[in-house]
Parts: sequence; structure tokens; C-alpha cells
Amino acid sequence: MPPQLLVLGLGPGDDALLTQQVRDSIASASDAFGYFPYVERLQGLEHLQLHASDNREELERARNALNLAAQGRKVLMLSSGDPGVFAMASAVFETLEQASPEEHARWQGVDVQVQPGITAMLAAAARLGAPLGHDFCTINLSDNLKPASIIERRIRLAAQADFAMAFYNPCSRSRPEGFSRALQVLQQECEPERLICFARNVSRPDETLRVVKLLDARADMADMRTVVIVGNSQTRQVGKHVYTPRSYKAASSATSAVTDHA
Amino acid sequence: MPPQLLVLGLGPGDDALLTQQVRDSIASASDAFGYFPYVERLQGLEHLQLHASDNREELERARNALNLAAQGRKVLMLSSGDPGVFAMASAVFETLEQASPEEHARWQGVDVQVQPGITAMLAAAARLGAPLGHDFCTINLSDNLKPASIIERRIRLAAQADFAMAFYNPCSRSRPEGFSRALQVLQQECEPERLICFARNVSRPDETLRVVKLLDARADMADMRTVVIVGNSQTRQVGKHVYTPRSYKAASSATSAVTDHA
Repeated sequence: MPPQLLVLGLGPGDDALLTQQVRDSIASASDAFGYFPYVERLQGLEHLQLHASDNREELERARNALNLAAQGRKVLMLSSGDPGVFAMASAVFETLEQASPEEHARWQGVDVQVQPGITAMLAAAARLGAPLGHDFCTINLSDNLKPASIIERRIRLAAQADFAMAFYNPCSRSRPEGFSRALQVLQQECEPERLICFARNVSRPDETLRVVKLLDARADMADMRTVVIVGNSQTRQVGKHVYTPRSYKAASSATSAVTDHA
Repeated sequence: MPPQLLVLGLGPGDDALLTQQVRDSIASASDAFGYFPYVERLQGLEHLQLHASDNREELERARNALNLAAQGRKVLMLSSGDPGVFAMASAVFETLEQASPEEHARWQGVDVQVQPGITAMLAAAARLGAPLGHDFCTINLSDNLKPASIIERRIRLAAQADFAMAFYNPCSRSRPEGFSRALQVLQQECEPERLICFARNVSRPDETLRVVKLLDARADMADMRTVVIVGNSQTRQVGKHVYTPRSYKAASSATSAVTDHA
């Protein structure tokens, strides 16, 4: 076996949403790196040495994990959800790309594998019904790593394309205004009856789901544990579920589409 | 236990990508409905009665499954990947919405639950590296249920927003031109060096991955078993992996963004 770094997704919270592949990887690893709350989920597994670190230390964490893997340990890098969606997989590849010549030599024998997980928007969509059953887009509303202007531009173009949208990190303590700005753009581009779903702590004991019309949406309905799903112009409710039809009735401009089934 | 219809995702192919939740549901169900190749995956489980049907019979399949669930059986509706992404969850809710008064009365006691799975684009992204590590969109290129014009419009707006893109159903026997048209739109909107990834039969023994520049992409590189992932303007390769950085360098117009890291 070559030295391995397995970049894993632990899903949104409930262990029943782990894949067998991830379970097997956890069972056979020696070390696990990750942000505190994700590493905490593996506490009590005596074969695993845990290396927790804080948010925004992703590159340092990746460097430490690669160094340990290069020593022949079988190392996990933990994300919640899916590691490829706004999570650690990109940070690991950024670290590999920025390697010094010494690091490059040290890390080149490490087999880096990404193993997928259930990402928050798909867990939330399942609990709601099927709001992402037609074309959609996925936007991280955090402006830590990109300008706020590109976020607004993407929401605007996504509304014009009539995509359903999933928003990650809608707001945080350091950025309470993030989601109000997104709501303003939606109010400019979409009809007031557009459905917006707030899914908080999905699959956890304190999960909450809330579905409102755009005209009733308020910024304080989302916090950092919330995934927000915005329907497209044809998304509607049937009983307690929200769904987007597979078929799409054409409109000359998506922004003027009428929700004739709403 | 009320009558149940569980709408499940079997993941892209490898049973190691099933969640424990889905395994438990399969173990305790009495009947499973689905498209032939998905139902085939459960052959040999003696406690399960299998009800396979053909493609494009989704609403009839959902009706039959709801009828059986209403009789008190514990019924599974199978999709590959995730049931909420271009799969059976929306079809089940469409069927519930269109219920006749008799059907409505018969089905109203049925507890319909959707259980998520690993969708093809996330399995493909994991095998490739992290091409969906920044904002992205997900488009079904099939024009069975929507006009070709809306597909082109969405690809064009997605390119202008500089989303990475995942394409499902890029072409089929009845629609060989579907993917050439998408390629033409990309060639108009994106730089020739843009990375395009073709992931076929992901997680199966005959999986193939191929990464090319847009200028080298040809329509025959995709078939109906392929998921296509188009990078954003900053997606690049490191070693054998493809990834999209978490951070985004601003450009006044995304379509004129220069890939200064390419």
C-alpha cells in the first residue's frame, strides 16, 4: 500500500447517511484531520489519532495531513457533507499546487483520493421533497474568498436562467448582511410568490424546515447552519412537500415566466 | 407503521457508495419499483418483490408504487444516483399532484419519504479531484421534457456567470446532436483552454475519465453513460487531478476572465 490521504465526506450529520466506502476508510485509517466539529464525530474510535484544527486553517491542515501521510500513515481529511462541495478537497489540491520543491518531493508518493458524501443541499432537498429535480445551481454566499460583486452577479444570472438555487453559508456572525443582499437580488429578479426553503441542521435531532414565499422571506431566517433552496419559477408545493417538475414550460424570458401551477 | 413509499438513490453503481439509510430501507422493504437496470441491482434479495419497468414510464410506475404502498406494503422507488436529481422523486410528486379524487383518497395515508444518494456528478468530481469546489450548476441536456432553447440559454448564462457546469444525459441514441449544440455554445462563451472532463460509468469496473481542453472536445466523447463536467475559468490540473480553487479572482466580466493560473 502506498501512503494514502483520503479526503472524505461525513454527510450532513446523521451517521446513517455515511457511505460504506467512508465507513471502511474510517475503520482502516490511523489519523484523521479536520475542523473541530467534524473530528469530534469520530471521537471514541481508539485506533484513530485525531488532529482537530480551526476554521480558516485549511491549507496548514492539508500540509500537516500530507506530511503525516508521506511518513506512511493512513490519513483521513474530514469534511462534512461532500468534500468536493465548498470543502477540503479543493484546499488539498491548492496545497499540492503550492508545494515547495522539498514538499513536492516529500508528497509525490502520496496517493490522494477523494471519497464523496451526501452534501447538505441534497439532504435538504430530500427532506423537503424534490426542489432540485430540474436544472439548478449551487452558490457559496460567503465572501471570504471571492468578491461580493461576483456572488450578486451569479444570483442575478441564475435567476435569469430560471435555475433553482442552493445557497451554502448564507450568513455568519462576521457577515450578517450576506443573505439580505442575496434576498434583494432575488426580489429584483423573481416573482414575489417564488418559494424559498430554509433547511437548518438537516438530518440532526434539531432539524428544522421552513418554506416561505419570497415576499415573506427575511434575512434572519438563515444562519450559518442553514442551507437555503430557492425554487425555480415552476417550483410548487404538493401536500407537505416542495418539488420542481421535471418538465419545463417555455417562456420567452425566464424572468417573466408565470407560475401557472402555483 | 403507516404505509410507506421510500424514494431511494442507489448511487452511481458501486454498492460501497450506498448509504446505511438506503441499505436499511432495502433490508426492510417488501417491494421495489424502478427502471430495469436499477431494479436489477437488487436481484437475489428474496424478501423483495421486484417491479421493473421501462424508461419514460415514470408516472405509471409512480402510480403503481403508490397503489401498492396504500395496500400496506413497504415499497421502494429506485433511482440511480440521488432520487432528487433528474430522477424519480419529482415524478412521484407530479403523480401525487395529478391524482384523481379516488387516487387522492387512496394515497393520502401513504408516508412518502425521499432518501438521498451519491449523485453521478459528485462521484465523478471525486474521481477527478475537485472540479466542483467552487460555485457550479447542474443541467440536464435532454430535451425530452424542455425546449432545446432553454438548455442553450442556461449554458450561455452559466458561462457568463463563470459557473463550473455538470451536464447529465449529454446525448442519447435519439438525440445525438444534443451535446454538439452544447459544445458550440461553450465555444462561443469560453476560452479554448477551458477544461472539460468526461466521466463514464463512474465507480463501475469499466469507469473511464478523460480531461481535454475545450478546443479538443468532440461530441462523440460523451454518450448516455457519461457525466460531463466543465470547469470554470480558473479550473486547472495539479498532477493527475482537476480542481477548481475555492477562491475567485475578480474580473469585470466573467466571460473575459483570463485564466492566469492555467
